[in-house]
Amino acid sequence: MKINESHHISTQTLDMPPRLLLGPGPSNAHPRVLQAISMRQVGHLDPSFINLMNENQELLRYTWQTDNLFTLPVSGTGSAAMEAAIANTVEAGDVVLIAVAGYFGERMVDMAERYGGDVRRIDKAWGQAFTLDEISTAIAEHKPAVFGIVHAETSTGVLQPMEGIGGICRENNCLLLMDAVTSLAAAPVFVDEWGVDMAYSCSQKGLSCPPGASPLTLSERALVKMDQREGKVSNWYLDMSLLAKYWDGKTRSYHHTAPINMNYALREGLRLVAEEGLEARWQRHQTNAELFWDGLEAMGMFCLVEEPSLRIPSLTTVRVPDGVDAKAVAGRLLNEYNIEVAGGFGQLAGQVWRVGLMGFNSRPENVLLLLSALKEILN
Amino acid sequence: MKINESHHISTQTLDMPPRLLLGPGPSNAHPRVLQAISMRQVGHLDPSFINLMNENQELLRYTWQTDNLFTLPVSGTGSAAMEAAIANTVEAGDVVLIAVAGYFGERMVDMAERYGGDVRRIDKAWGQAFTLDEISTAIAEHKPAVFGIVHAETSTGVLQPMEGIGGICRENNCLLLMDAVTSLAAAPVFVDEWGVDMAYSCSQKGLSCPPGASPLTLSERALVKMDQREGKVSNWYLDMSLLAKYWDGKTRSYHHTAPINMNYALREGLRLVAEEGLEARWQRHQTNAELFWDGLEAMGMFCLVEEPSLRIPSLTTVRVPDGVDAKAVAGRLLNEYNIEVAGGFGQLAGQVWRVGLMGFNSRPENVLLLLSALKEILN
Repeated sequence: MKINESHHISTQTLDMPPRLLLGPGPSNAHPRVLQAISMRQVGHLDPSFINLMNENQELLRYTWQTDNLFTLPVSGTGSAAMEAAIANTVEAGDVVLIAVAGYFGERMVDMAERYGGDVRRIDKAWGQAFTLDEISTAIAEHKPAVFGIVHAETSTGVLQPMEGIGGICRENNCLLLMDAVTSLAAAPVFVDEWGVDMAYSCSQKGLSCPPGASPLTLSERALVKMDQREGKVSNWYLDMSLLAKYWDGKTRSYHHTAPINMNYALREGLRLVAEEGLEARWQRHQTNAELFWDGLEAMGMFCLVEEPSLRIPSLTTVRVPDGVDAKAVAGRLLNEYNIEVAGGFGQLAGQVWRVGLMGFNSRPENVLLLLSALKEILN
Repeated sequence: MKINESHHISTQTLDMPPRLLLGPGPSNAHPRVLQAISMRQVGHLDPSFINLMNENQELLRYTWQTDNLFTLPVSGTGSAAMEAAIANTVEAGDVVLIAVAGYFGERMVDMAERYGGDVRRIDKAWGQAFTLDEISTAIAEHKPAVFGIVHAETSTGVLQPMEGIGGICRENNCLLLMDAVTSLAAAPVFVDEWGVDMAYSCSQKGLSCPPGASPLTLSERALVKMDQREGKVSNWYLDMSLLAKYWDGKTRSYHHTAPINMNYALREGLRLVAEEGLEARWQRHQTNAELFWDGLEAMGMFCLVEEPSLRIPSLTTVRVPDGVDAKAVAGRLLNEYNIEVAGGFGQLAGQVWRVGLMGFNSRPENVLLLLSALKEILN
């Protein structure tokens, strides 16, 4: 047969601009992570890889602050881990209550509906957190099988207080689902203490890795619900009952080929967390965030989230001053200074910038640089 | 709250054994690919990344031999691309006919059932290919909306001839789904000439990349069926109608964060294909496979697939000689020579080894080494 040459293009050696990624993610990977990701490969059933899987699981348990046996990286980006949490625990007809105060709450709704959930919602304006009373009342009213809430809502910058929610869920025989995509390894996360049953995150934010291997942890209560399913999970790739046999430390039977090099990267990201220690790491994120918030204030600018304790330390939503074109400023930051920040969207389109100081990028020099660049552009 | 230190393990600097991966995949990535994957990151909406996405799409069209606009890498391993092909085109109640002569045909059945397909099957023993007559008769009988077949069945080593199947499918108003996980960039694949509507592959075999970004291409006919769906795809992460807006070259609207570094790796893998040229690459795989087959014959060993034209050039199933413990031999290859080959499973458990000579690893020196090592162990 004749070869179709119309798409046979010639390309240059790979070279990407030296961006400082201060948006909502991906954040720049730590240099040690970029070194680890290029390590020569072994097979996904090689004894050396199985040992690495064990290490990753154990380091993930530390990072999540959980003893959950079922703790592993899903072979996809954060949304795949989110879908894995939902697909495996929501069955057709289950009442699922979602607290929605931003885009990622909306996404939970969309996903839970696709898996046949009878989805109810409590809503707040983008930029607000839910109170325990509001949550308690809604759970009593809807009696859901699953209650989903976003710990760090990347679209708004709000850090949702989690204390007390797990107790309410347990009293009402309901599983607690938590989105920690932007908080893991950047802000305090206590899966076991908070009574969270399903939690998921990503690799490219607090963990300073490239995107592509996403932490998921499931409690015993979640596993019991999975075991009692009537039919197969409608998603094969994310069917955790199949995947569990690969990650369980015993069977190691083939499900799909794990992303080997992403697991190398994740291991290095998790080692960096373990070396620094969670408390020091959380404090570093908080300190650099406060440095940034103080700098904004000194420039006469404001955070969308007024109450500092409700701000995500790794992701700040900055109010765009009146008369300023948010998109033009972000464009100049990128084109003149190689700094990426993101705009708002949905209810906050044009009203905020979203600034991430995550993992490796949470450093005072990055705060100073961004504040200086903003001054140059806004003055 | 008090930190749970019980999983706070200390680990060594990453170091993996120097394996030569001659199993069914992953294969060793090309050194240029491992260099590319560690390139500094940019954001997934950065103009430089969007340019890279365009290049990857165009190089994938060349590799697939298709003009399909919808051609992209799915953010997961090959099974995710497989599920994307099925989830988007199979609706509840659709008759789906699958040709099953190995494990990956079985997996198609499992996935199509999960998406509500009314699944019918034609079966042959593991190790055989289907004839056009058998396919034509089964399609006439079942009148499926989708007919699925595996081009290169990794569990058996059979290369299924594809000529003529597309015509039968079109005459019967049926979409043709093809698994090319083990054949893409290693054996001739002609998506357009063969009339294939949905085809998927992986990155870690013929493309010499790590696993984690998996080629998928959909024809106009497949897109029409997707557009006419009654409900949402029950899989959010793999909903190609959402993802299309990120990859369409115009909207570039956010769906999920693309695996940035895996896309760097894929670009380098595809550049290597373009530099070598498809015809030269296919010929190289064929030549090295024949070198291996001749060497086996000289040792008094046999391929499971007797007819050479039905053998996958990148994956050979070698009959285990009588009285030989297949697993013990594979163990010695790994432990004494750092060479990975795989055993058979399912109907072929204990009866074959599966030997891959894929992408970068399809080189005469690897053939000589493997034959020598087998001689040492078997004699």
